[in-house]
Amino acid sequence: MRIAIVGCGQLSRMLALAGIPMGLKFSFINDNAQPDTTCVDGLGKVVAWQPGDEFSALYAALGEPDVVTVEKEQMNVELLIGLQAFCPVHPNPDAVKVCQDRHQERLLLDKLNIPCAGYVYGEPLDVCAEKLSLPMVIKSCRDGYDGKNQWVLKTPAEVMALEAEFAGQQPLNRDYIAEQFVPFDREVSQVSARAVNGDMRHYPLTENRHDKGILKQSIAPAPGASDQLQQLAQQHMASIASELDYAGVLAVEFFVCGEQLLVNELAPRVHNSGHWTQSGSDSCQFENHLRAITGIALGSTAMSGVAGMVNLIGTEKPALSTLTADSKLHWYDKSVRPGRKLGHMNFKAANTDLLLAGMSGFSRSLEG
Amino acid sequence: MRIAIVGCGQLSRMLALAGIPMGLKFSFINDNAQPDTTCVDGLGKVVAWQPGDEFSALYAALGEPDVVTVEKEQMNVELLIGLQAFCPVHPNPDAVKVCQDRHQERLLLDKLNIPCAGYVYGEPLDVCAEKLSLPMVIKSCRDGYDGKNQWVLKTPAEVMALEAEFAGQQPLNRDYIAEQFVPFDREVSQVSARAVNGDMRHYPLTENRHDKGILKQSIAPAPGASDQLQQLAQQHMASIASELDYAGVLAVEFFVCGEQLLVNELAPRVHNSGHWTQSGSDSCQFENHLRAITGIALGSTAMSGVAGMVNLIGTEKPALSTLTADSKLHWYDKSVRPGRKLGHMNFKAANTDLLLAGMSGFSRSLEG
Repeated sequence: MRIAIVGCGQLSRMLALAGIPMGLKFSFINDNAQPDTTCVDGLGKVVAWQPGDEFSALYAALGEPDVVTVEKEQMNVELLIGLQAFCPVHPNPDAVKVCQDRHQERLLLDKLNIPCAGYVYGEPLDVCAEKLSLPMVIKSCRDGYDGKNQWVLKTPAEVMALEAEFAGQQPLNRDYIAEQFVPFDREVSQVSARAVNGDMRHYPLTENRHDKGILKQSIAPAPGASDQLQQLAQQHMASIASELDYAGVLAVEFFVCGEQLLVNELAPRVHNSGHWTQSGSDSCQFENHLRAITGIALGSTAMSGVAGMVNLIGTEKPALSTLTADSKLHWYDKSVRPGRKLGHMNFKAANTDLLLAGMSGFSRSLEG
Repeated sequence: MRIAIVGCGQLSRMLALAGIPMGLKFSFINDNAQPDTTCVDGLGKVVAWQPGDEFSALYAALGEPDVVTVEKEQMNVELLIGLQAFCPVHPNPDAVKVCQDRHQERLLLDKLNIPCAGYVYGEPLDVCAEKLSLPMVIKSCRDGYDGKNQWVLKTPAEVMALEAEFAGQQPLNRDYIAEQFVPFDREVSQVSARAVNGDMRHYPLTENRHDKGILKQSIAPAPGASDQLQQLAQQHMASIASELDYAGVLAVEFFVCGEQLLVNELAPRVHNSGHWTQSGSDSCQFENHLRAITGIALGSTAMSGVAGMVNLIGTEKPALSTLTADSKLHWYDKSVRPGRKLGHMNFKAANTDLLLAGMSGFSRSLEG
């Protein structure tokens, strides 16, 4: 069985590494002329594609895959629609399309009565400010990730400055939602797998800590999360995945406000906040994504103890002496650039105190 | 960091798959003109070597590895000695040499006062029969694995028949030990990792079930094994590994007779009876072998629940529908031949009853 993945980054790499043991074969679609495909070196053929290229030629060059999947949502959905003529595509193109546009996401959530922060779409910034009152957060509908294309506006002067900036730009860049600033307690994410037949397996709710918009650390299960909160997250997840007729791993990011969950965004793929599952769960998210899209029974998502992850961002490969008995290094073999996600370290421990001690010890060793 | 492995089989494959996530690089030495190296396709360069070839050219072709290791003991040790001029070799050539010869193994065990079945070396078969009394087991000193080159002799007629068979053969084939037949309760193995600095981590004692000399199933921890038996196995392991100045994963197979352990044989490498660690342990034997030989802190060998493995021998790849939430397929991508180890299925469960139910359900599905 062969799986073609759109994208040549670390998520594709880790999907392939999870599937090769099972005897699955992989090929990769380089759909945006990415010059650096070192992440997937040796793991399968890389085939370039650009709009206008024949889908039959692409399908043949990929080795006639049995299923096509994605490692990202920011892509030309026509590629997925074109390949659907040859084999199943999971998640389906419509699901990817919804998740690549914040406004579409909001319409879906509104339809399902799933709460998110109050928002305004399609209005000038000053009208948004009036309707929501300041501070508010402006988020581009597309290409917003790792804190990019987001602006927190606190004063009328900041609103005017951004209005002026947008005025000179392409319409797509001016396509945004304005969102009420939510004074949330913390951010968590629900990562779950849904099989083609509708079966679901949920990982425990994960707490995520960001720095300048980029995920820095995850801890699972989210410390102190009540059963009620966990169930609420799973209910929202199930309702979204079912509505999208989704197959694969789906991630939903939430703001936690007391016992309330507000959806921040959806990711139709394996997710950085699920990387800890490589150490902490009986089946990692990468394996379960593959199981979900190929019709293999979903793997157990049981965990013993607690787990965590520290992202390695813009830093040289850590010395192997920083590894302990309870940590695992995942290095993506990318060239080092500031702000770039280059790897992560997973941690496992018997309890949260020990986990945090291990994680902060490692983080200190990176800075020192 | 680059690691070169002697051998291109499934153990090399699984070592590489355990190391690639850490950013380790691999190359493989095809030292016996093995035509089928599909196991390691894509995982690193394969370099052929035969006696007489220059070691400096080999070392360069391998990409100047930082350390050399092995996936097997039946090999020309001159290869390891030759490469030692360029980089560390773990386990060391002397250790491999001892483990590739049953008589050398026995001399080592005798020196360490570690019990094994009574044996005779260097005597004609009829003398052995007289000294040990029948039944006895004849085991070639070299090239004995998976039940090959072993003979159980129960009657004087069988002794004479084998004597006649040996008479026409090369001296090496007639190099054997004769061993008392041990009416053992079961076979178990101890798999442990020893780091370059002497640190050790032990996996729980594993029970192994064979069919026609080939390992068919493993279960860990060995059901009902007392703490005392576990400690005894670890003591023997530690004493052997220390005496050999060993770095890497070492496996010791034992016969269990009541609360006594008799060493059957040693394997200076990751071992089939440790494959369950991929599912059942915080760190699998492949990762710990790499950690041990590269100076990375050994990974935790803690396990939750129980784990087992079923070998896939001479059979087509099982249908993916045979996978359950608690099983993981490892398929080696070799061509199918009768009697050949082609893959294995790992199982995890909360207790031994559930584990055995899962394993036998799968085994039945293979036969059906």
